Amino acid sequence: MKKIDLNCDMGESFGAYKLGMDEKIIQYITSANIACGWHAGDSMVMDKTVKMAVEHGVSVGAHPGYPDLIGFGRRNMDCTPDEIRNYLVYQVGALLGYCKVYGARLSHVKPHGALYLTAVVNKIVARAVAEAIVSIDSNLLYVALAGTKGEMMTRIGNEVGLNVIYEAFPDRAYTSEGNLVSRREPGAVIKEPGQVIERALRMVLEKRVIAVDGSSIPFEVDTLCVHGDTPTAVELTKGIREALEAEGVELSPM
Amino acid sequence: MKKIDLNCDMGESFGAYKLGMDEKIIQYITSANIACGWHAGDSMVMDKTVKMAVEHGVSVGAHPGYPDLIGFGRRNMDCTPDEIRNYLVYQVGALLGYCKVYGARLSHVKPHGALYLTAVVNKIVARAVAEAIVSIDSNLLYVALAGTKGEMMTRIGNEVGLNVIYEAFPDRAYTSEGNLVSRREPGAVIKEPGQVIERALRMVLEKRVIAVDGSSIPFEVDTLCVHGDTPTAVELTKGIREALEAEGVELSPM
Amino acid sequence: MKKIDLNCDMGESFGAYKLGMDEKIIQYITSANIACGWHAGDSMVMDKTVKMAVEHGVSVGAHPGYPDLIGFGRRNMDCTPDEIRNYLVYQVGALLGYCKVYGARLSHVKPHGALYLTAVVNKIVARAVAEAIVSIDSNLLYVALAGTKGEMMTRIGNEVGLNVIYEAFPDRAYTSEGNLVSRREPGAVIKEPGQVIERALRMVLEKRVIAVDGSSIPFEVDTLCVHGDTPTAVELTKGIREALEAEGVELSPM
Amino acid sequence: MKKIDLNCDMGESFGAYKLGMDEKIIQYITSANIACGWHAGDSMVMDKTVKMAVEHGVSVGAHPGYPDLIGFGRRNMDCTPDEIRNYLVYQVGALLGYCKVYGARLSHVKPHGALYLTAVVNKIVARAVAEAIVSIDSNLLYVALAGTKGEMMTRIGNEVGLNVIYEAFPDRAYTSEGNLVSRREPGAVIKEPGQVIERALRMVLEKRVIAVDGSSIPFEVDTLCVHGDTPTAVELTKGIREALEAEGVELSPM
Repeated sequence: MKKIDLNCDMGESFGAYKLGMDEKIIQYITSANIACGWHAGDSMVMDKTVKMAVEHGVSVGAHPGYPDLIGFGRRNMDCTPDEIRNYLVYQVGALLGYCKVYGARLSHVKPHGALYLTAVVNKIVARAVAEAIVSIDSNLLYVALAGTKGEMMTRIGNEVGLNVIYEAFPDRAYTSEGNLVSRREPGAVIKEPGQVIERALRMVLEKRVIAVDGSSIPFEVDTLCVHGDTPTAVELTKGIREALEAEGVELSPM
Repeated sequence: MKKIDLNCDMGESFGAYKLGMDEKIIQYITSANIACGWHAGDSMVMDKTVKMAVEHGVSVGAHPGYPDLIGFGRRNMDCTPDEIRNYLVYQVGALLGYCKVYGARLSHVKPHGALYLTAVVNKIVARAVAEAIVSIDSNLLYVALAGTKGEMMTRIGNEVGLNVIYEAFPDRAYTSEGNLVSRREPGAVIKEPGQVIERALRMVLEKRVIAVDGSSIPFEVDTLCVHGDTPTAVELTKGIREALEAEGVELSPM
Repeated sequence: MKKIDLNCDMGESFGAYKLGMDEKIIQYITSANIACGWHAGDSMVMDKTVKMAVEHGVSVGAHPGYPDLIGFGRRNMDCTPDEIRNYLVYQVGALLGYCKVYGARLSHVKPHGALYLTAVVNKIVARAVAEAIVSIDSNLLYVALAGTKGEMMTRIGNEVGLNVIYEAFPDRAYTSEGNLVSRREPGAVIKEPGQVIERALRMVLEKRVIAVDGSSIPFEVDTLCVHGDTPTAVELTKGIREALEAEGVELSPM
Repeated sequence: MKKIDLNCDMGESFGAYKLGMDEKIIQYITSANIACGWHAGDSMVMDKTVKMAVEHGVSVGAHPGYPDLIGFGRRNMDCTPDEIRNYLVYQVGALLGYCKVYGARLSHVKPHGALYLTAVVNKIVARAVAEAIVSIDSNLLYVALAGTKGEMMTRIGNEVGLNVIYEAFPDRAYTSEGNLVSRREPGAVIKEPGQVIERALRMVLEKRVIAVDGSSIPFEVDTLCVHGDTPTAVELTKGIREALEAEGVELSPM
């Protein structure tokens, strides 16, 4: 029986500011990547989000980012490997505090935004992230980009002794080399729900994705990333989940 | 054989800003209260400080404060109990990350500055702090003010199921009721080294302190707080340690 | 012909976080109190908000708060008068930068949240705020609470040489002493639109408000504070404006 | 009679953290670049520093940086031109607040750290900085790197309508192309006081600098940057000033 995980970035509200429909999306996903207060999220939101994940049997993961609340962690910062390593230890540690409070096991770490995208292309950053994770707990799963593009990140994760989880984005276009099409390009984000669901199914059932040039490329996928920041995104996640279940795929946490 | 712990607030540097002579003081103390990045400290400093504490066999404790870097956590903030609880879980958790990296056991939690002083006098804050600690790990020690003034904080710590450590300040004047003399009063801080050492000895050997009115008041002390922010403070700590050892007192971590 | 100003707190979004319906509300108000990046708002939002105010002929005012983004400036902080004074100079100055960019005149300063509420009851804070404003420009208007409760704040504003603007809240209940009913009390916020409009009219036309005990209390009002954070709040502001205009009241900036 | 300005970065303390010997250095310099609270400095420090500059007849300039207190503004951040523009307007505006308080004229803007170094090599950033300055006040001077390396920055400053001030560093090694030798290279910073003074003299009197390969390269210099962060740096500044005055050079603000 095929298995897949559905992950979603959560806990990105901050103080008086609300972002995302976490309370709605939580019922459809199997893993939550929880912001740790640096690019988004705060201690109150982390508390609520870990509690909610535990109540729904959803895996708890850390979603650390650059120290850039004003830029939502989406801007690259020229940090040293030691800075990156420590930024992750701090943020993952903070989430560990909440895991202890709610008796949750921390399952995985997925870097956020610019930190994730830089880790995909920059060996030094990829290694700093991986070393931070393994230094905390070698049982933590390292979420890396599925496909050719993510190979370096994956290899480094394995080298330091981590198990790597391959992540794919059913609502994102891929190049024939298996890279994500840049968000600056038209068509980078696929908006038609039926199409996204179809891509999600193909990723899981056939382990393939149709690239922008029409070619069908193979890749391993362990988890699909979904979004919960709009009512339609919530509906779409529900649709993806139901379509997968209808095909006999088991939804299970990382 | 009498035992005492010497604790010191450490890791209060931030980014390019250096504060304290941690590298000097570490050799004389037995417990380090490490700032967690909110009122002082940052992830790089925490890394270095936990590593140094482990290397010197010094107990690692968390020293969380209000989210007030600009005010060094010295200003009271009108937070709800739930905010305080979460501020502590976050900060203590972050330090736990570094404990995992360096294989250290987190031994204790001592709130910083305005948070400590408010917990001494405000039941709701004292309880929020204690509940945060116990929710993370009931084996964590709760550092509370020794003497009459600290009784409420202590009682609440015990009520929630924590072991409380009584802390005294050999360089601070006490009232005949066992309260610290406010820093705004003249003579609140005792500067003459011989006098501070003498007070430290009396606190440990006789379990008493001479109050400002000359009366001798009894109190239980488990740990003496020393300072490491000036070269003379480092010298004084060395003096306190040597004087205690000369009297056959064993210096041992909490 | 009677005149009144309608003011609204604006520019409270931050980074990726959106708050308020500024683009809708701007057409109905005559003065904007613009957040200055400490309790809310950021430099991008300030730029956009000042530009928008200028385009709509709306008065630009500063809305400075405590350095407490995570608490939205709603929590009291135990700051010294000199700290408060400097917190205001900094924030008002930052807004002055945008006024220079868009050729706007800065018209007024209205402290935000806990800073406002503390200034209403605490002489030292009220004076620190007033002195900050006058030190920048004695032509700046100081927005203070209308009614008995605001008398101290007003007197201090006058003493330091500022012109004080009396602000009233048509959607808030008042005690018979002219105080705002605390938000913790039931009925503190009046939600029925017709009632709010009626109160706004009475405040402007009769210079009176009906207190919770049914008594009619007199007070001077220069500006009514409205809200723009929900679609219904925007509708209500439109209703207040139209009702005032129907009565021949001229809506004009401070 | 030859004239030169001596500028120094000042006001880089933050909260409880002290950096620099501003009180000592102020008597030897003619222009102060004052940190604006984002990479360093805070509202209390700005107040004190502007006041001190005014008292000493020293020109007040803004020294804005990236929003990166933890990295002291020394790390590049991938910001959009609009973000950079607004980051400057905000920070320069904040300093304008203090200029109004102390009746000072804001004379110049010198970007800090990574923002400065990026503006030297990146046209888009150089333009964003220049446009921010001119949008506030076209009389503000734009401090740019002297020599070939600074030509682009200078040209863009002129294009937007600003007067550009050429800045040189007597304690830094230059390449034969007129670039600063990277701090990562050995010999990038010249430490021998006599040599620094000699270089300062040659820069001002001969408008030349001896490059690392021994060649003598020409450049225009309006201001020399000195440091005030150590007692020896203060002494060195005194030495530079006295040597210049002994040669009949007039020290005068930008």
